[in-house]
Amino acid sequence: MTLACPAPHHEDGVVLLGHGAGGRLTAELLDTLVLPALEGPGGPLEDAAPLPGHPDLVISTDSFVVSPLFFPGGDIGSLAVHGTVNDLAMRGARPVALSVALIVEEGLPLARLRAVAESLGKAARDARVPVVTGDTKVVGRGAVDKIFINTTGVGQRRPGLRPSAAHARPGDAVLLSGPLGLHGITVLSSREGLGFDSDIRSDSRPLHHLVAALAPLGEHVHTLRDPTRGGLAAALNEIARDARVAIGIDESDIPVPGTVAAACDLLGLDPLTVANEGCLVAFVAPTAAEDALAALRSLPEGRDAARIGEVLPHGPAGRVVLRTLVGARRVVDMPLGELLPRIC
Amino acid sequence: MTLACPAPHHEDGVVLLGHGAGGRLTAELLDTLVLPALEGPGGPLEDAAPLPGHPDLVISTDSFVVSPLFFPGGDIGSLAVHGTVNDLAMRGARPVALSVALIVEEGLPLARLRAVAESLGKAARDARVPVVTGDTKVVGRGAVDKIFINTTGVGQRRPGLRPSAAHARPGDAVLLSGPLGLHGITVLSSREGLGFDSDIRSDSRPLHHLVAALAPLGEHVHTLRDPTRGGLAAALNEIARDARVAIGIDESDIPVPGTVAAACDLLGLDPLTVANEGCLVAFVAPTAAEDALAALRSLPEGRDAARIGEVLPHGPAGRVVLRTLVGARRVVDMPLGELLPRIC
Repeated sequence: MTLACPAPHHEDGVVLLGHGAGGRLTAELLDTLVLPALEGPGGPLEDAAPLPGHPDLVISTDSFVVSPLFFPGGDIGSLAVHGTVNDLAMRGARPVALSVALIVEEGLPLARLRAVAESLGKAARDARVPVVTGDTKVVGRGAVDKIFINTTGVGQRRPGLRPSAAHARPGDAVLLSGPLGLHGITVLSSREGLGFDSDIRSDSRPLHHLVAALAPLGEHVHTLRDPTRGGLAAALNEIARDARVAIGIDESDIPVPGTVAAACDLLGLDPLTVANEGCLVAFVAPTAAEDALAALRSLPEGRDAARIGEVLPHGPAGRVVLRTLVGARRVVDMPLGELLPRIC
Repeated sequence: MTLACPAPHHEDGVVLLGHGAGGRLTAELLDTLVLPALEGPGGPLEDAAPLPGHPDLVISTDSFVVSPLFFPGGDIGSLAVHGTVNDLAMRGARPVALSVALIVEEGLPLARLRAVAESLGKAARDARVPVVTGDTKVVGRGAVDKIFINTTGVGQRRPGLRPSAAHARPGDAVLLSGPLGLHGITVLSSREGLGFDSDIRSDSRPLHHLVAALAPLGEHVHTLRDPTRGGLAAALNEIARDARVAIGIDESDIPVPGTVAAACDLLGLDPLTVANEGCLVAFVAPTAAEDALAALRSLPEGRDAARIGEVLPHGPAGRVVLRTLVGARRVVDMPLGELLPRIC
C-alpha cells in the first residue's frame, strides 16, 4: 500500500489522520518530530513509564476522542478508565490513582455530560482506582467535537513482574486473552449506523485482574501488551521491533468472532488491524505457557484465551509472520494508518 | 451581574462557556455534576492531590486549549509545562515527571506542531522535569481547534512544606509575587488583534523556584495558589471559602502594570479577574512575612513581590474585601464566568 503523502519531516507537510492511528505513520511522526523535540527517554516506547526516583511506580497517559460517545458495551467515560488502567497493567502494575481532564464543547447537553461522568466514575470504582484530581475546560462550539477526555494513571508494579516489549525471547509462547476486533467493529458500526448485528458489543474492560492472575509466574512473563489502535498487527510488530525477534502466529488459533469476520470481509478490513480494548497478548517462557493459559482462563475475561503462536528461533528481527488456514505464510505488516479513526 | 442561564442541575440545560472558566459556574458544575459522579475525595479542591499510599507525592492534571497557539511571551507548549509545574509547586512540590498528551487536528502544518513540541520540550528542560510518557491523537478537520495539550505532573513535596487552601489563618500576611493580568491581556490582545501595546508579554513561567525560596520558612507558609483562570479574585475567594476566613486586600498595594490597567479600562474588565500564569499568592504567618517577601524578591521572577493584604481577624467566612484607592471598601466576588475564554 502506498500513500501519496508528505513524510512528517517535510516542513511543508501537514498532519494526517493516519498520524494518530498507531501505525507506521504514527511511529514516523513520533520518531522524527515529537520525541526529538521532547528529548524523551530512549529505548522502547512502552504503555507506561517508570517514575524517576520511584521505580516501583509507573505512569501512563491517554486521550480519548471516540465517536460516538456511547456505543454498545461502553462509552467514552468507561473507555477512558479502562484504557489507562490497561496501559498500567501492561507494565505489571495495579492502578493507584487516576487524573481526569475533560474538554467539553459549549452546548453539550448537561445530561450527556452527566452520563459520561457517571460512567467514568462507575468504571473507576469497579476497577478500584480513585480519581484523585481533575480539570474541566469548556471551549466554544466547533472547537472540540462534544467531549474529549484525558486520563493519566499512576500504578504500583507487582513485585517480580517486569514485563517489557523488549523482553520477548525466541521460544516464547504468544498468548491472546480473548477474541479480536469487537471494539473497533462495534464503534464503527455505531458511528456509521451499519448495524452489523444487534448483539455485537465492545470488549472494553479492565485487564489488571488478568495481569494479577499471571503475577505468580513472575519473570516468566516477558511481555504484555493490549492491542488497541492498530490492533494485534501493530502490537506484535512493536514487540518484534523492540525485542529484535521474529514472531509467528497461526490464523487457525486466533479467535475472531463470526460477526467481526463478516464485517471485516464486507469492509475490506483485516481483523488483525482492528482495535481492541479488552484483551491482551502475553509473551511467556515456553515452560510457563500452560500455567499462564490456565491463569488467564481462570477469569471470565480470559475464558477464551488461546495460544496463537511463538517467537521464532530464527528469522529476521522485527518480522511478524502469519501461517494462514491454507498453509501459506504471509508477512503481517505494521498498519500504515488506521482505517478507523477515533476508535478510542 | 445576572445571567439568564439554566443551572447545571437542570437536565435540560447545556454546557456554557462560563462552566469552564474557573468561576462560580465552574464551581457549580463541579459540585453538582462532576464530583458526585466521580465520587472524588471530599474536602477542598487543591491544585494537586496526594498520591494514595505515597503522601510525599502529589499529582496534577491540566488541559491547555489556549487560542492563539503562539502569543508574546509563550505558546501552548511552554504554557502546558508551566501550568502543571505550577500546580505542583502550589502544593509545595518540585516536579518529578510530566506526561504529555496531544490532540491534533488533521491538516495542522507539521512545522507548527514541531514548533509547539520544541517549545514544550525546552520549557520542560528549563524546569528540569523529564517528559516520561505521552500520547498523540489526530482527529478530523473541525473536531478540534488545531491542537490541545494535556499535561499531568507528579511532584515530590518538599519536607516541612504543607501548604493548603484550607490552612490560611486570621492574621496571615497575603503576598503576591508579581504584577497582575499580563497573561490574560496578552492572549486577548493577540487573539483579537487589538495590539494594545507592542511590549506586553505573558508572564508564563515556572514558579517552583519561588516555592523553593519559601521552603526554609516551612510551616509558616500556610497557603500557596497561582491565580490563573478567574484571576486573583477567584484564587482569594477559593481560599477564603476553603479556610473559612475573610481576606482584606489593598488596591494601592496590588501591582497592575499600566498597559493592563489601560486595556482593562477599555474593555470593561477587572484586573483582579484576569488570568495570570507566572505569579503566586502566598499566605504566611505574620512573623514570617518579611522573610517571605525577601525570599520572593531574591529571585528575578519575584522581584516585584508585594504584601497586598491580610487575613482579617474577624469578618464573614468566605468574604474577600478590597480597600480601594479612595478609601472605600468593596466586596470582591468570585467571578461568575470568565470573560476571556481559552486563555490557558
